[in-house]
Amino acid sequence: MNKSQLLQQDREHLLHPFTDFHDLGKQGTRVITNADGAYITDIDGHRMLDGMSGLWCCNLGYSRTEIADAIYEQLKTLPFYNSFFQCTTIPSIELADALSEVTPEGMNNVFFTGSGSEANDTNLRIIRRYWDLKEQPNKRIVISRTNAYHGSTIGGASLGGMSGMHKQFQALDYITHIQQPYWFGEGGDMSPEEFGVQAARSLDEKIQELGPDNVAAFIAEPIQGAGGVIIPPETYWPEVKKVLAKYDILLVMDEVIFGFGRTGEWFGSDYYGLKPDLMTFAKAVTNGYFPLGGTMVSDRVAEVIKAKGGEFTHGYTYSAHPAACMAGLATLNVLRNDKIIDNVRETTGPYLAKRWAELGDHPIVGEARSLGMVGALELVKDKGSRARFDDKCTAGGVCRDMSIKNGLVMRATGDTMIIAPPLIITTEQVDELVEKAHRALDDTAKALA
Amino acid sequence: MNKSQLLQQDREHLLHPFTDFHDLGKQGTRVITNADGAYITDIDGHRMLDGMSGLWCCNLGYSRTEIADAIYEQLKTLPFYNSFFQCTTIPSIELADALSEVTPEGMNNVFFTGSGSEANDTNLRIIRRYWDLKEQPNKRIVISRTNAYHGSTIGGASLGGMSGMHKQFQALDYITHIQQPYWFGEGGDMSPEEFGVQAARSLDEKIQELGPDNVAAFIAEPIQGAGGVIIPPETYWPEVKKVLAKYDILLVMDEVIFGFGRTGEWFGSDYYGLKPDLMTFAKAVTNGYFPLGGTMVSDRVAEVIKAKGGEFTHGYTYSAHPAACMAGLATLNVLRNDKIIDNVRETTGPYLAKRWAELGDHPIVGEARSLGMVGALELVKDKGSRARFDDKCTAGGVCRDMSIKNGLVMRATGDTMIIAPPLIITTEQVDELVEKAHRALDDTAKALA
Repeated sequence: MNKSQLLQQDREHLLHPFTDFHDLGKQGTRVITNADGAYITDIDGHRMLDGMSGLWCCNLGYSRTEIADAIYEQLKTLPFYNSFFQCTTIPSIELADALSEVTPEGMNNVFFTGSGSEANDTNLRIIRRYWDLKEQPNKRIVISRTNAYHGSTIGGASLGGMSGMHKQFQALDYITHIQQPYWFGEGGDMSPEEFGVQAARSLDEKIQELGPDNVAAFIAEPIQGAGGVIIPPETYWPEVKKVLAKYDILLVMDEVIFGFGRTGEWFGSDYYGLKPDLMTFAKAVTNGYFPLGGTMVSDRVAEVIKAKGGEFTHGYTYSAHPAACMAGLATLNVLRNDKIIDNVRETTGPYLAKRWAELGDHPIVGEARSLGMVGALELVKDKGSRARFDDKCTAGGVCRDMSIKNGLVMRATGDTMIIAPPLIITTEQVDELVEKAHRALDDTAKALA
Repeated sequence: MNKSQLLQQDREHLLHPFTDFHDLGKQGTRVITNADGAYITDIDGHRMLDGMSGLWCCNLGYSRTEIADAIYEQLKTLPFYNSFFQCTTIPSIELADALSEVTPEGMNNVFFTGSGSEANDTNLRIIRRYWDLKEQPNKRIVISRTNAYHGSTIGGASLGGMSGMHKQFQALDYITHIQQPYWFGEGGDMSPEEFGVQAARSLDEKIQELGPDNVAAFIAEPIQGAGGVIIPPETYWPEVKKVLAKYDILLVMDEVIFGFGRTGEWFGSDYYGLKPDLMTFAKAVTNGYFPLGGTMVSDRVAEVIKAKGGEFTHGYTYSAHPAACMAGLATLNVLRNDKIIDNVRETTGPYLAKRWAELGDHPIVGEARSLGMVGALELVKDKGSRARFDDKCTAGGVCRDMSIKNGLVMRATGDTMIIAPPLIITTEQVDELVEKAHRALDDTAKALA
């Protein structure tokens, strides 16, 4: 089939996620046909360094034959069996065991799902069940943050704080949102340190306002990903820990983006020294090769829901799909054997930090921030006042297009450019990434002038 | 690793879906290790005819190398790319096109998800978006049925009518449930035909009660699957069609279980001559080899959400995963090339109907019903009064265990035994299934005597 036929069929039959179908029908789509290492290639042969790891998931890049082989072998042995009705499979047991080893101490149980969205729905179920079994049924409210992303089911999108999503459905009324720790956008005249403390204290204020006996849990990404790689000020998490220590409230860390090495530690919770009660994972657990998500359940929570008995009336057909679990095991093996996370922490992460910071000198960049293997650039018309080019986030869209043209996939979240390259990229590829990003910024400045 | 170590790790680390963790920890689990054709084998070498196709998904059985090969080739070429941000992949376009061909006329658009649960959440979003764009924002309420199963997300479980699930979370308040068309359980003295009409008219009554201007959609499985293979009386769907014709309400058919041939037609909607506005699919679309779900969107709905513009703020990382779509294409090819559905309609389905009906003569069977490649047995103490053995559904559990011991996977839903064998089973295997089911009934009668 040729390209124009493909584009026509795409327009006629495929409804793309998070898309304006009307506009897409006019603009057409980019057909990605193959990939290797840290690069993707489209139908026209245009090869791009993938600065987004697919969608924050292909952390080991696109050439992991170990993972493909593990999936294939499993599909030929036992392509599926469920884990309902007192049944189980060896890959699901082995992955549950392996996850208990790599996740923070005290997290020894896993409930598998097919995605991060499903896992956050599972968290809502577990949270409710836990407080019911603890005979504190008033503890119902879950506190999240504005601009958070926790998936796209009704449950996940309610937990998320994306206003554009909330406009199109009726969010769950027992979820509420506090301020995000986004210093560049909302810090005003405060220093990052002052703002971090203030944002953390808004959790305390909200708990007081709602009444601690009514609050079930606080959910957060260690660093907001889809919200625009919002790296919180260094004061934020220590202050949140102080707040949480005052109350009997569950901490749910959504590690869908930052789990499995992106910060240079196994989990964002490790990086910030947090002790979550529940921990959502997905994406990089299988390097994006096979859908798998889940939630790690701490001993504190597991003991209650295990001991008190009664059926937990929840689950998915593909909870613990054996081929998904084999993909997870193969991915964990690569992470460990190739010392991928050590390399991010000790070599490529610091190198990215140094090179990415140089982009902060560009005339249209108000802030260049990075941590581990993520980065963000705030596009501004005026560096001093942090003024944007316009209210429509035109700059972000232009810069993304220029970047793709220059052979680098960057994502625009409003006028914030973000990257989350594969953890396997070399220092030479970091140079390539920064140079292409720099050209994209030059081209954007020219186009907007 | 040996069996006792595996069982210990399972107990210590894996939280199984729809399970009493406390009881399972004591009872232990059955470790399924491999499978071939229509059979699964456990770690002790016990081989069983899988009367449930995994979990209603492995409709083509467990030895489909065509599907495994298609997945493997894709994983080596382009193991993942997303379909956000104006991007697409060839497998996603080709599967969207193929689904438009095999689904009922007028369904030409697909929104991919990773599961049936996620797809029903997507339906809730599309329904809301449709009526908002039609400037009828009062149309908010979705009518479903008691004992329906539509997934396990907050959205899916709210749509479902499972009381055991509803007890453990707060269901969405804009979903309401009417009577299910379960004649054996709820028909009382009425004939099946009378009861079917009554159950259908309860939809009309509910719409009148709520006000037609407030009702957005009616969702239903063509035949309730997890609810106990509730095959509605022949009068039910014709009467529902009459009711729906009176009102401007969307019809959502959940084809997760009955799609892709289980009735002997491509979809349950084809079997009953229904014209859905939205159609949920999952499970058998990939033969269970790779998680994939989605919703087919009719032209009526697609034209509105496409033409009126604006971003549809919803989607999942693995919406249109390229390897999932390749698995779907390979599955559709087998269904078409091997004339699997024709064979169910013309040969194995009628043969199962004949043989399954014989089980109705067993002393503890109150009703034996089947259609296409599903069947159910109602276990009773007294055939005349339909009296059950006890209130605790002991008979179902005993019969399931006896069946597994005899080498046949049957599922118990309360005291209803259900089967949904792979569509590929031969008439000889139907004989084997019926003989093993008969022995399980004998053993159950003996155990309960």
